[in-house]
Amino acid sequence: MTIKNVCILGAGTLGTRVALQSALSGYKVSIYDINPKASEQSKKVMEKIVHQLAKSANLEADAGLNAIEGIIFTDIPANAVMDADIINESVLEDYAVKKEVWTLFGQIAPEKTIFTTNTSYMLPSMFADFSGRPEKFCALHFHDVFYSKVVDIMPHTGTDSDLIPLLMDFGRSLEQVPVFVKKENPGYIFNSMLMAFIGAAGKLITNHVGSIEDIDRSWMVNFHMPMGPFGILDSIGLDTAWHVTSSQKDTASQKFAAFLKTYVDAGKLGEKTGEGFYTYPNPAYRSKGFIE
Amino acid sequence: MTIKNVCILGAGTLGTRVALQSALSGYKVSIYDINPKASEQSKKVMEKIVHQLAKSANLEADAGLNAIEGIIFTDIPANAVMDADIINESVLEDYAVKKEVWTLFGQIAPEKTIFTTNTSYMLPSMFADFSGRPEKFCALHFHDVFYSKVVDIMPHTGTDSDLIPLLMDFGRSLEQVPVFVKKENPGYIFNSMLMAFIGAAGKLITNHVGSIEDIDRSWMVNFHMPMGPFGILDSIGLDTAWHVTSSQKDTASQKFAAFLKTYVDAGKLGEKTGEGFYTYPNPAYRSKGFIE
Repeated sequence: MTIKNVCILGAGTLGTRVALQSALSGYKVSIYDINPKASEQSKKVMEKIVHQLAKSANLEADAGLNAIEGIIFTDIPANAVMDADIINESVLEDYAVKKEVWTLFGQIAPEKTIFTTNTSYMLPSMFADFSGRPEKFCALHFHDVFYSKVVDIMPHTGTDSDLIPLLMDFGRSLEQVPVFVKKENPGYIFNSMLMAFIGAAGKLITNHVGSIEDIDRSWMVNFHMPMGPFGILDSIGLDTAWHVTSSQKDTASQKFAAFLKTYVDAGKLGEKTGEGFYTYPNPAYRSKGFIE
Repeated sequence: MTIKNVCILGAGTLGTRVALQSALSGYKVSIYDINPKASEQSKKVMEKIVHQLAKSANLEADAGLNAIEGIIFTDIPANAVMDADIINESVLEDYAVKKEVWTLFGQIAPEKTIFTTNTSYMLPSMFADFSGRPEKFCALHFHDVFYSKVVDIMPHTGTDSDLIPLLMDFGRSLEQVPVFVKKENPGYIFNSMLMAFIGAAGKLITNHVGSIEDIDRSWMVNFHMPMGPFGILDSIGLDTAWHVTSSQKDTASQKFAAFLKTYVDAGKLGEKTGEGFYTYPNPAYRSKGFIE
């Protein structure tokens, strides 16, 4: 089969980006959100991204804005999925919500539709049966589409193996680097490593081995990277980081979660609130003298 | 006090680099190795580095070669340490060898000398007493001096706190970024994080979650880095990686150590033997199509 029509479920941060990239890559795109205001906001974000891409990447602003005009924004499920070759679902990272969405779309999607979920920490096997077509169900997990261009393809044991090369090609057509996750693993591949290294940074801070700045400095200078673990946490959001860390039951994670909680309780959620471990828009780690 | 005379113990990879950078930064340098051949080799490596630096960094080859000419290479302990303001020890990473070296140099060094060890995985408290002057003893740990310009300053509980700012300044004078490790921690700061993320990569491979290439790809593309965990292991050396991993007693590390051992037993030690997870000098991860 050939994928032409892409249906995105959820017009949040990630759904917006996958929909935009799909439209820019020439697919016919519909994006569904239960909340019409989310769709309005999504369109604005797309326009903003197009203007940014027009500055740095190989894109004409007009072509990008035209692509956005071609996208169907809708709060009516049947309209979104009508002729979909593939669904990529990015609704709220909540079991009950995803269960409800997959039960509904499993009933109304055309027979040809491939079902993919963008879940960050849950597993495709948790929803495959609700869709009614577990063999057509697979995780297709984007990172942020425009900066970190990885797409994870992670089947559950019941996924038809013919889907894999098709999804690899689809990922490439969206200018992503496809990564095949051979079996279900929470956090796929990158997040497993990211969480391990962030956890080690957490242990260093809760054991008072080094300062936030010195821990970041070590990472940045050794790996020639623009930010260290605490800068990365600020960009992820300390509420999300707390949520993920507190769900791990080992002592080190619990200690680090308690540490993160003091920031969350103080309203310091990172870059998005203007303060986390650093203050924004000009965090210390971006200043000239930081790594000297 | 002012540091003018630097004495390096051990003319291996790291000792050679610290000695060279010290000479380039204007210090009077002596380098001691029990083996005269190691000193000869060290001088050759220094000349090679100077020619490389002359290509890319702000250094005149002649000035660099002159600096090398000023270095005293010796296999006589008393000659090396005669007027030393600071010792930085980079001898074999072996408890008995370091113990013997510190016992000897503690006896013959002038009273003014500051004692520092470059140990990678041991702790300054393990040797401080052998030197006879535990209050003057601190870890001063370089990474590779010319690419990863971090120097860790890690006291033990008996280190005189006045040493810390002095060692921070000394590190800066060698064009390094000083990182203060507030208390003893095996692996300092960076290696704790590095080992955690490498361990996570090991778990992914021994649990058959992804291929070596896909795991590296995930890391490289998400972090815009030139190599992933298995590329990094190849550059560290799989024998060293096996040595460190097998010393950790948890099940995941033991499984990963067994996996690394299959490469070590086959003589595939990484970049230095021409083969590890990748083949060199042109490993797949440096090829153009790898992250597409």
